[in-house]
Amino acid sequence: MTLRIAVAGASGYAGGEVLRLLLGHPEVEIGALTAGGNAGTRLLTHQPHLLPLADRVLTETTADELRGHDVVFLALPHGHSAEIAAQLGDDVLVVDCGADHRLTDPGAWERWYGGAHAGSWPYGLPELPGQRDELRDARRVAVPGCYPTVSSLALAPAIGLVEPEVTVVAVSGTSGAGKAAKTHLLGSEVMGSLSAYGVGGAHRHTPEIAQNLSKVAGRDVKVSFTPVLAPLPRGILATCSAALVPGASAEDVRAAYEEAYADEPFVHLLPEGSWPTTGAVLGSNAVQLQVTVDRDLDRLVAVAAIDNLAKGTAGAAVQCMNLALGLPETTGLSTVGVAP
Amino acid sequence: MTLRIAVAGASGYAGGEVLRLLLGHPEVEIGALTAGGNAGTRLLTHQPHLLPLADRVLTETTADELRGHDVVFLALPHGHSAEIAAQLGDDVLVVDCGADHRLTDPGAWERWYGGAHAGSWPYGLPELPGQRDELRDARRVAVPGCYPTVSSLALAPAIGLVEPEVTVVAVSGTSGAGKAAKTHLLGSEVMGSLSAYGVGGAHRHTPEIAQNLSKVAGRDVKVSFTPVLAPLPRGILATCSAALVPGASAEDVRAAYEEAYADEPFVHLLPEGSWPTTGAVLGSNAVQLQVTVDRDLDRLVAVAAIDNLAKGTAGAAVQCMNLALGLPETTGLSTVGVAP
Amino acid sequence: MTLRIAVAGASGYAGGEVLRLLLGHPEVEIGALTAGGNAGTRLLTHQPHLLPLADRVLTETTADELRGHDVVFLALPHGHSAEIAAQLGDDVLVVDCGADHRLTDPGAWERWYGGAHAGSWPYGLPELPGQRDELRDARRVAVPGCYPTVSSLALAPAIGLVEPEVTVVAVSGTSGAGKAAKTHLLGSEVMGSLSAYGVGGAHRHTPEIAQNLSKVAGRDVKVSFTPVLAPLPRGILATCSAALVPGASAEDVRAAYEEAYADEPFVHLLPEGSWPTTGAVLGSNAVQLQVTVDRDLDRLVAVAAIDNLAKGTAGAAVQCMNLALGLPETTGLSTVGVAP
Amino acid sequence: MTLRIAVAGASGYAGGEVLRLLLGHPEVEIGALTAGGNAGTRLLTHQPHLLPLADRVLTETTADELRGHDVVFLALPHGHSAEIAAQLGDDVLVVDCGADHRLTDPGAWERWYGGAHAGSWPYGLPELPGQRDELRDARRVAVPGCYPTVSSLALAPAIGLVEPEVTVVAVSGTSGAGKAAKTHLLGSEVMGSLSAYGVGGAHRHTPEIAQNLSKVAGRDVKVSFTPVLAPLPRGILATCSAALVPGASAEDVRAAYEEAYADEPFVHLLPEGSWPTTGAVLGSNAVQLQVTVDRDLDRLVAVAAIDNLAKGTAGAAVQCMNLALGLPETTGLSTVGVAP
Repeated sequence: MTLRIAVAGASGYAGGEVLRLLLGHPEVEIGALTAGGNAGTRLLTHQPHLLPLADRVLTETTADELRGHDVVFLALPHGHSAEIAAQLGDDVLVVDCGADHRLTDPGAWERWYGGAHAGSWPYGLPELPGQRDELRDARRVAVPGCYPTVSSLALAPAIGLVEPEVTVVAVSGTSGAGKAAKTHLLGSEVMGSLSAYGVGGAHRHTPEIAQNLSKVAGRDVKVSFTPVLAPLPRGILATCSAALVPGASAEDVRAAYEEAYADEPFVHLLPEGSWPTTGAVLGSNAVQLQVTVDRDLDRLVAVAAIDNLAKGTAGAAVQCMNLALGLPETTGLSTVGVAP
Repeated sequence: MTLRIAVAGASGYAGGEVLRLLLGHPEVEIGALTAGGNAGTRLLTHQPHLLPLADRVLTETTADELRGHDVVFLALPHGHSAEIAAQLGDDVLVVDCGADHRLTDPGAWERWYGGAHAGSWPYGLPELPGQRDELRDARRVAVPGCYPTVSSLALAPAIGLVEPEVTVVAVSGTSGAGKAAKTHLLGSEVMGSLSAYGVGGAHRHTPEIAQNLSKVAGRDVKVSFTPVLAPLPRGILATCSAALVPGASAEDVRAAYEEAYADEPFVHLLPEGSWPTTGAVLGSNAVQLQVTVDRDLDRLVAVAAIDNLAKGTAGAAVQCMNLALGLPETTGLSTVGVAP
Repeated sequence: MTLRIAVAGASGYAGGEVLRLLLGHPEVEIGALTAGGNAGTRLLTHQPHLLPLADRVLTETTADELRGHDVVFLALPHGHSAEIAAQLGDDVLVVDCGADHRLTDPGAWERWYGGAHAGSWPYGLPELPGQRDELRDARRVAVPGCYPTVSSLALAPAIGLVEPEVTVVAVSGTSGAGKAAKTHLLGSEVMGSLSAYGVGGAHRHTPEIAQNLSKVAGRDVKVSFTPVLAPLPRGILATCSAALVPGASAEDVRAAYEEAYADEPFVHLLPEGSWPTTGAVLGSNAVQLQVTVDRDLDRLVAVAAIDNLAKGTAGAAVQCMNLALGLPETTGLSTVGVAP
Repeated sequence: MTLRIAVAGASGYAGGEVLRLLLGHPEVEIGALTAGGNAGTRLLTHQPHLLPLADRVLTETTADELRGHDVVFLALPHGHSAEIAAQLGDDVLVVDCGADHRLTDPGAWERWYGGAHAGSWPYGLPELPGQRDELRDARRVAVPGCYPTVSSLALAPAIGLVEPEVTVVAVSGTSGAGKAAKTHLLGSEVMGSLSAYGVGGAHRHTPEIAQNLSKVAGRDVKVSFTPVLAPLPRGILATCSAALVPGASAEDVRAAYEEAYADEPFVHLLPEGSWPTTGAVLGSNAVQLQVTVDRDLDRLVAVAAIDNLAKGTAGAAVQCMNLALGLPETTGLSTVGVAP
């Protein structure tokens, strides 16, 4: 099978990472590469690391350009995917790396993003309980946000063993903030500095984490989420904690995590005593995970590491494409990071 | 007044920072510089940034070398300070940058550090309620750990408004881990990577944070503490949270923080909407702080930034020396960071 | 003496560094702080590290705002200084951190910058032979470019001992590129990457280096200059080399460098075998320098390190202010770096 | 064909990178993984990014362990390869990532490394003129040093067009210095700092660059080489220059470079106006290259970027294995970097 693929938003970080992964995928052929303001320029200018596509010229992001491919990856600012997708038939698999179709609750969408809710699509985190089945044969996939991916995978096995209020502090590299030129994202500003932002429940990924954990729990789970920006291009390390419910033990916790991920190809529960580093997952689709119990507080602490552009965005997108099209889920993806 | 100063451990990071600050202090003269294995070598080799002292030769760390100075700064691995200090009379002010004399509870010392407890000294965090008075005319000062400094200052004003269980995730630069050559601290390992360590209550600064907050609260405060290592040499950003007690409001919180630090020269509560960055405090003795309430969870979230070597170690040491000797507390210290 | 100071361009990197240094200068009082697009905003927003000035509001950069101060520092994009300066009388000392008045040759200005040449001012590199006298009592000072500062100081003592063609490869942090938001300067782009730019004699600092060395040589010196961008905020390390003239020896070279800088307070020739690092000069006005001879090629190699924002810009500006006003040249400046 | 592979020095950076690449190579099966002091420990401890091999236990580096494989990669400190290789028959392809067999001149070996010369092996830089043929069917390969790789490829096409004296300043990430814990390589030391080392012809890669260029030239080429250490884990950017011979033009230069690399799968001469960045080649076997002529000096300037661990070490090792065994040269290798 050779699938013909288009990528909208090919000059940005998410689009570039989709292309990087697709260049190593044995079943695809890369078709249209589209962009907004960068249409008309060569890909080399924007993605100098994608040498095999260096001479490709970006075209305008329109439904006409994207139509006629088997799969279309959308890597667009939020608010742009719905309109494009509506013009593409169900013969096209549309994988949206943006936020438009992640939240199921229109009220939540309105509160956090504003404007009309475009409706939700199958949510592309197959490692959540029951989620993989939603993705088989899907024609539309909403790729999760990077913080929700790492946080949800770090905490989902704990549901039932912890009280329904969790605290997540996730430290991230800068590529998650995108490629638009902003002063506070300049190298001079971020190198040698750490900063918190979206504190106190102000970050848009908060409701998405809550949605995932609440779905697993079958009840409302509250999330205190704080993202921290650190001086590295890629990687998220999430430290997640919650009070154990009475009677839950450290052994219960270990068993739950081992069981949850025993058969998952990309989620790796480390041996006890080893802790995740983002360096170890750079460029890979792996999640490295560890969990412990702080016995002084009877509090579970889970730490997980991902590459925000890979498993946090483009890797998940390719994984979901594989699932939706009936390919082996791991095709073109790796658990081998680039380190040091 | 000209004070004659000695620094033990002058080839390490803490000792180097004490010297950097003392070189800008108008009332001191720098005497003996001592070291362990580096005795006999020139300071330039170890501290190439301290040009005015470049040709000084390090001598062996012994009581004889240190005696005869007005102030002795100890920047030694834990376990070494007590013996040296015991050999210095009360005519010498001894400021210990190490951990030996921070914990007041011998049982806690034994659990976390092992060995016999050397006894506690006046604790060098003058911004804690009531603490400044303990430091005036002190002859011995225990400089706080870097994580306890930033965490305690971030949460102390909240005591009474929050439940006595707090969560702290503190992201730190690498210099806090010291200058001993270890593989996991190599530049190749830390650049481009984030890692958690001492998770689940395993870090020795946990009981020190708990001690500080419990003293303020007059009751036991439990602390879930996770340190994260990030790729920068200096700086700690601590994200601290706790559930509000029933009836406490965001306005109460704001008022408590404003009142607590209104007259503090080094703790700067930022205007609402601004968040701390460690880059802004690099090299300075300032603490930048912000606090908010997450209304979805009725949870207080405070974020604070310090330079771990300055306010987190050497700056506090100099501040306490000033206090102990009756100098203006801010002498030789600054709230101006080196940025970008 | 209390000098009243104004800074134009106070929201940028050069302006911020001038202010950082002036906050530690005992003879100045900080008056007007002006900006372009940022006029009307508080300084804290742009310079969160300058806490003592946090609440100052930036005003529009106009001659009216700047008039009435003893010293005006201009930290503006090139092309803006001449017009402002023309409106300020000779009672005001104007120190221009920009490029407008550095080149003496109108033809060179036209070739490299374009537009009409605004004329040259006394050149603010007092360590060049004869240059200090030009700066005493000056009313206008052109602060050198950062690359010309480090390159000229690294090579000036070699003039006469080397052939008049030199090669300079200077690696720089990102702050030299300024604070305007550009995609290629994003943290995500610069961290983990090295890039060359302005290669083959295309960088505007090339003629300035040539001008300095030619003036010292009394003949035309040709300069092959390549700047390299590296992932750090501050610092330039310049590697400079040139063929020895017949008969010149390594001993001649050493003697020339020792003599040249024996009495210079800021230029530090390191002991043989030690090599400069930019980390050691961070935040300081020091130049660390080493020189050797490659005996296989009879080629001199000099390596020098500065902080591009300090000695490379704002430190030189303050040093020249001191000189022009008859203050001790080192007032408010330091040779102590902030490391690690 | 399935080749059975062993890696000696599997816990270090070069060994880890060989393994990373081999995990993506379709024709190999990974056998013995050996180490020195780390023998007996699991690979996960040292190479947490190589999840598929996480549970492998390192064995002692001995000829017995390595024998019985089709290919043995040696990633050992220099001085250790010869002895091991001598105990392996010619039925084993031995690819040495160390320095032992690179220099052809025993006198040069003695001067730069000391001790007896172990003899030279076919030199693993197939892109040098005539070199590829030496590698076909080879049973022993000496993988080039990282600096010689990038410098030789940047300058080889210029031979004949430039005078036989070249200047190379190469900026490198820290992984080239290896994984042994040394104070000056700590993250705290290297982040935020640049340093030169091995200046004035003191670095051991100098004679290797000279050997390569002299072989191409058929005459002695002299090399002024300065390495600079910069704060990133991987990547080398080399700036290379030399005076044009009389009559050589910019057009001649362009044509020579285009011709030299037109058919090379890994060396990519960028379109005029684009300049290499190391970020674009991270993790890949690509060389990005640009060349220009500085018309003010009639001097050629070439800039090239590689990943020092990939094309600079392990990528070249795999490329040479492919060549020696008659596999397509690009098998298991990529020109796609991991960026940003």
